[in-house]
Amino acid sequence: MFVVVVYDTLAQRNPRILKTCRHYLHWVQRSVFQGELSDAQHRSFTQTVKRQLDTEYDSVLIYRIQSPQLVQTETIGQHPGTTSPVL
Amino acid sequence: MFVVVVYDTLAQRNPRILKTCRHYLHWVQRSVFQGELSDAQHRSFTQTVKRQLDTEYDSVLIYRIQSPQLVQTETIGQHPGTTSPVL
Repeated sequence: MFVVVVYDTLAQRNPRILKTCRHYLHWVQRSVFQGELSDAQHRSFTQTVKRQLDTEYDSVLIYRIQSPQLVQTETIGQHPGTTSPVL
Repeated sequence: MFVVVVYDTLAQRNPRILKTCRHYLHWVQRSVFQGELSDAQHRSFTQTVKRQLDTEYDSVLIYRIQSPQLVQTETIGQHPGTTSPVL
């Protein structure tokens, strides 16, 4: 499956979430990662993220699409992934 | 089409982009909007955003999927759209 992840976490937890996202996905924009995951990888990713979040304050949004062929991506302005990830 | 928009703009331009996104889409998380747009609405949206950005510094990422039925959305932690949009 193709996955887009957008996180909104308290700054102190950003480095942990960033590390987990980097392990499974590619960075595309501040707080946005995308990539292809198997069902098992998706399960493992969400379980890891759940342990790292404070669910009272943080939010991680995950869009799942069966195949990357079903998604068209456009960027206006600076192109994704061309600069370093910002925490 | 179903559209997910994630923007990363300089703070001073955030209110303009936020207003444009709100006009066309629903707010779901900090800097994230989604919704259904016709081809004409999508053209109008991207043209407006292009005029409002400084393309040297800002980035707006747009994911287009033919139908919302092709997308599964998961939220871990705070649910999207349940609090006020933060600029």
